[in-house]
Amino acid sequence: MKVIISSFFFLFTSLLLHAQNGHQLWLRDKKALPVHVICKQNSPTLTIARQELHDSWQGAPGATISLIIKKDRAVKVDGFKLNENVIQANTDKGILYGVYELLRNQQTGGKPKGGVDNPSYQFRILDHWDNPDGSIERGYAGNSIFWRKQDPFTVTDEDKKLWQEYARANASIGINGSVLNNVNASPMILTPDYLNRAKVIASLLRPYGVKIYLSVNFASPVSLGGFKTADPLDPAVMAWWKNKVKEIYSIIPDFGGFLVKASSEGQPGPQNYGRTHADGANMLADALNPFGGLVMWRAFVYSANNEDRAKQAYDEFMPLDGKFRDNVIIQVKNGPIDFQAREPFSPLFGAMKKTSVMPEFQVTQEYLGHAVYVVFLSTMWEECLQSDTYQQGKGSIVARCTDGSIFPQKNTAIAGVSNIGLDTNWCGNHFAQANWYAFGRLAWNDTLKSGQIADEWIKLTFYGDSSQKSGEADYTGDWTKNFLVPVKQMMIDSREAAVNFMTPLGLHHIMSANGHYGPGPWWAPKGIRPDWTPPYYHQASTNGIGFDRTKKGSDAISQYHEPLSSEFNNVATCPEKFLLWFHHLPWDYKMKDGRTLWDDLCYRYDTGVNQVREFQKIWDKAGPFVDSTRFMEVQRKLREQEINAVLWKDACLLYFQQFSRMPIPYDIERPVNNLDDIIKNDTRRGDGRSH
Amino acid sequence: MKVIISSFFFLFTSLLLHAQNGHQLWLRDKKALPVHVICKQNSPTLTIARQELHDSWQGAPGATISLIIKKDRAVKVDGFKLNENVIQANTDKGILYGVYELLRNQQTGGKPKGGVDNPSYQFRILDHWDNPDGSIERGYAGNSIFWRKQDPFTVTDEDKKLWQEYARANASIGINGSVLNNVNASPMILTPDYLNRAKVIASLLRPYGVKIYLSVNFASPVSLGGFKTADPLDPAVMAWWKNKVKEIYSIIPDFGGFLVKASSEGQPGPQNYGRTHADGANMLADALNPFGGLVMWRAFVYSANNEDRAKQAYDEFMPLDGKFRDNVIIQVKNGPIDFQAREPFSPLFGAMKKTSVMPEFQVTQEYLGHAVYVVFLSTMWEECLQSDTYQQGKGSIVARCTDGSIFPQKNTAIAGVSNIGLDTNWCGNHFAQANWYAFGRLAWNDTLKSGQIADEWIKLTFYGDSSQKSGEADYTGDWTKNFLVPVKQMMIDSREAAVNFMTPLGLHHIMSANGHYGPGPWWAPKGIRPDWTPPYYHQASTNGIGFDRTKKGSDAISQYHEPLSSEFNNVATCPEKFLLWFHHLPWDYKMKDGRTLWDDLCYRYDTGVNQVREFQKIWDKAGPFVDSTRFMEVQRKLREQEINAVLWKDACLLYFQQFSRMPIPYDIERPVNNLDDIIKNDTRRGDGRSH
Repeated sequence: MKVIISSFFFLFTSLLLHAQNGHQLWLRDKKALPVHVICKQNSPTLTIARQELHDSWQGAPGATISLIIKKDRAVKVDGFKLNENVIQANTDKGILYGVYELLRNQQTGGKPKGGVDNPSYQFRILDHWDNPDGSIERGYAGNSIFWRKQDPFTVTDEDKKLWQEYARANASIGINGSVLNNVNASPMILTPDYLNRAKVIASLLRPYGVKIYLSVNFASPVSLGGFKTADPLDPAVMAWWKNKVKEIYSIIPDFGGFLVKASSEGQPGPQNYGRTHADGANMLADALNPFGGLVMWRAFVYSANNEDRAKQAYDEFMPLDGKFRDNVIIQVKNGPIDFQAREPFSPLFGAMKKTSVMPEFQVTQEYLGHAVYVVFLSTMWEECLQSDTYQQGKGSIVARCTDGSIFPQKNTAIAGVSNIGLDTNWCGNHFAQANWYAFGRLAWNDTLKSGQIADEWIKLTFYGDSSQKSGEADYTGDWTKNFLVPVKQMMIDSREAAVNFMTPLGLHHIMSANGHYGPGPWWAPKGIRPDWTPPYYHQASTNGIGFDRTKKGSDAISQYHEPLSSEFNNVATCPEKFLLWFHHLPWDYKMKDGRTLWDDLCYRYDTGVNQVREFQKIWDKAGPFVDSTRFMEVQRKLREQEINAVLWKDACLLYFQQFSRMPIPYDIERPVNNLDDIIKNDTRRGDGRSH
Repeated sequence: MKVIISSFFFLFTSLLLHAQNGHQLWLRDKKALPVHVICKQNSPTLTIARQELHDSWQGAPGATISLIIKKDRAVKVDGFKLNENVIQANTDKGILYGVYELLRNQQTGGKPKGGVDNPSYQFRILDHWDNPDGSIERGYAGNSIFWRKQDPFTVTDEDKKLWQEYARANASIGINGSVLNNVNASPMILTPDYLNRAKVIASLLRPYGVKIYLSVNFASPVSLGGFKTADPLDPAVMAWWKNKVKEIYSIIPDFGGFLVKASSEGQPGPQNYGRTHADGANMLADALNPFGGLVMWRAFVYSANNEDRAKQAYDEFMPLDGKFRDNVIIQVKNGPIDFQAREPFSPLFGAMKKTSVMPEFQVTQEYLGHAVYVVFLSTMWEECLQSDTYQQGKGSIVARCTDGSIFPQKNTAIAGVSNIGLDTNWCGNHFAQANWYAFGRLAWNDTLKSGQIADEWIKLTFYGDSSQKSGEADYTGDWTKNFLVPVKQMMIDSREAAVNFMTPLGLHHIMSANGHYGPGPWWAPKGIRPDWTPPYYHQASTNGIGFDRTKKGSDAISQYHEPLSSEFNNVATCPEKFLLWFHHLPWDYKMKDGRTLWDDLCYRYDTGVNQVREFQKIWDKAGPFVDSTRFMEVQRKLREQEINAVLWKDACLLYFQQFSRMPIPYDIERPVNNLDDIIKNDTRRGDGRSH
């Protein structure tokens, strides 16, 4: 993202610290100290491991470090054993991960926990919603790094350099898979030209241990094979897929597999032919099985019927539990609706006991301010992973239900929808890099705390840029007190701030249909399916607000295991953060703090705005410790976020006030925007589609 | 001003109080009580006086009130004597003013001071900057009520009704003159068609005691008479004017006279022919003298030379003191620059001892937020009128220097540049009506306090609209506590708030050249005369900020009488409200409160923003006591004002920070706008011309 700055501003800032453009992410060049590396084996991956040690060593000068590949039953898949200056693993990939862990600890002043370090999930995957034409659906950091419109099949040195940098960044945080294209998949991706470009990408990612995957369009046999049908039980269709898979593996021998969005939001799928999701997924699984390929089949389905959308994925997939092949994994979004700022966890987690289930998180900030807001998503994902499903008794948290701790799964995996594009800083907002980082770290270790992840990221990303001396890390002085501590606090609070000024108390899906940025609780054009309109979700009227999902309502609460089910069903025990998700309540409902629901809503919106203003102060105070370019780019983002936060507050309070008919408490700041103006200005209308 | 409100908003507000559109100003219909009126004489004016009593009487039911015209040497010009139920005056106009005074007291619960009540100024005039094509220079309430583009010379019944309402409103506050056209005058105004329309206007205003005047273009003999010159000493030119004046009086026998902007900002004038302002003014005065007409000659002159613009009017006119005819009045703006939010008084007041001088105030909010801001200008005018010039010793305040108390003037006058247009509520902003009202009240009594004026206006304008019972005024209950008191406080504080968020500490002329709305301290295109650019006035650099008008600088302070001159010259004694008007100071200059100049500047801008937010709260709380239409229209204005106040604060702090190189104190809210964006968005460029 480039910032146009008027001439005198250049003058001004040229007086500040030297510039960093953020392209190096958390892997900025270091003045390395000498180190001896001993390693008997050899491989491209081990060469990288060696090089990283030489380029970044910050430990004892002249130390000797040994890299040993040796089978060890305690060490799983990509895991490693790290003791003093010895890194042992079953594979060269394991060695590489061990090296990054060691270097990270040196740079962040962390202590290697020592001993065996195995990843929580076997498959730690970034899903790219990149289209063959180079555009990115819900991408906010420029066009695709993989595909482009102009001269689409030439591979330049810049391409290779970028793919290598991308692979290295992923390897450094343990990500080992990339789905190269959008889940709303173009059949074209399976044509030779694209497969051959994918082959080159794969060759650059391979040494870093990153496998490539493709999203496929279920109707490919029709559009590419010229078939009349894509019926998964049709032998010709099966054969077509078998051949296509064979072709893919002949080009990319270590191809990872398919990601499929089928019978969902207009995408073709088995249901077009009266078949089940299991029929569709298994057919592809059988084609991939001989090559060890995976099928990641998305559970993000809902039809335009009268059933509560929040219930539909569960209703659709539970009957199919146990009917899927071993190499199928059901990919489930963290919440039952769609990547909202806050949702309860999806009831499918832990409920499907005889099927591999993988969480899908959204790293790109579709509903969280795009590349504008500073929102650290780690806390949201941690909240989901730590949620107790009670499916196998207390402690059956989502993490343990999906990482194989509770249910023996042949395959465990986790996916994050990428926020990466061609922008110099990869993610549009410097702080959005922290979400890419956090996803990788949590995918490796689903017990990590967001505070530690933020701490690591800040040190790796900013330390040494400014006044304080570069080189060996010293986290005792001013930098820690005036930069690390407050900026970490900002990150930890940032997601709750966004919830407060957008959708407090369990409100959801009230954003502008136009691009999912900004408020739009009123949006409901005639003829559009209700479950794409905000009024369907907030149910505001003069009687009250909220979606009744109790036994008296849609009964979505029954999809949760006891005691959760009853806890959610009872307004007295339902956590207030989910209050309007599960309950429709009168405006004068008394909250725990004694306020009316209306007043409480007002205060929460106002709190959100003031939190963003506090972030602005924190960042401005941190100015002396950051290079001028990144300082000013983030400063501008926070200003834009404040303006949008005020817009959210004004729009929602003025809109809902028409129903509550109650005054906005006079001790909070008054709206400065007019509801009719906000509605008028939000003229462009999106189709409200998500993914 | 019409507010577009989306459908449901109508629904919403229709539940609130019944609507008032503000067209009735402070003269809303009342349920009148019976009264007997005795009056021997008769005249159109007396008929109005009688009618007003019958229509609005709120005193003792069935009371008898006598109107007596009788010469009384204690009663001057339009004055009257009011005792119990007897109004005595020398003229029927005096009677009418007495009636309005009596009715105003009844409605506002005020006590008639009784006895003689003479106006401070003989001529109490509204200057309309209306053009023959119907547009209004610096008008923010729609087009002219007098002139129009389409079918310009037809007079409709609507025209007559409007002119009558206008005349009545003026009479009710003592205004007795109207200049019907812009000081940047088109010669066309003196052609028969326009004079005949003016004649009709005069006929509607006459019964209400309002005389009409015209602004004339000094070069009219050239453009209309086909002369080669407009030299005031040219006999043919003199003759042309004598004839033109004779023609005017043949059409409008009680014509008031001319307002002239000559040799100023490109307007033609005597200096084009090497003559003085006295030569020009006297020539016109001689033409008008036989008919008792006046010449109001503006002192708003400054040339594109290197002399401090603030000094030029004084330098130009002082040498001419005593050289003007008796029927010439020099019209002097309140301050030496140009209607800024705050200026010290013009040094010409009290300095010209042998010439009639009249103050010119600006009722239209050219530099004070147009029709958007709620700014009660009475406090600004009071500040000017009460300023001590020391010209004849302590107590020689501007009021007494111009109303004849100190210097025997044949004529005393005061002018206000009108804020009136075709908008339903006349002034664009309901609160702008208070400025029209305040000008009239101060013109009648230049010792009035703004608190009393605001009190009257609020009662007349809002009381009885809402919950509390209509009819007899009861100012003891809720209405007073929750509406009158806080709204009055808002009005009293409103001008200082605008000074704070626009031009605190004596800053001036740093507004956007584009329409004089919003900030523009940076504006200085190449080639434009410096005294039209903000940097000329703020003089900001890394060394400091402010215009040095001390002895070491432009020495403008010497135009003020001692002890003022020395008080302004000495930074230690110069009032902080004028600090940067008279002094250029380093950014770290220590203010009285111990803060640095930079910090103090920041806090004042921030204070201004928070004052506007406080006004929003006051108004929202007052909601239950105001009809919905006016409530919502004002509410929207205040929202827009808050957004513009934040823009002012951000723009000025970020712009000046480039020079101060000091941080904005962290306990105040951070900027949310980017300086380069503000500059980019303010693309349309005005020529910086004023009037």
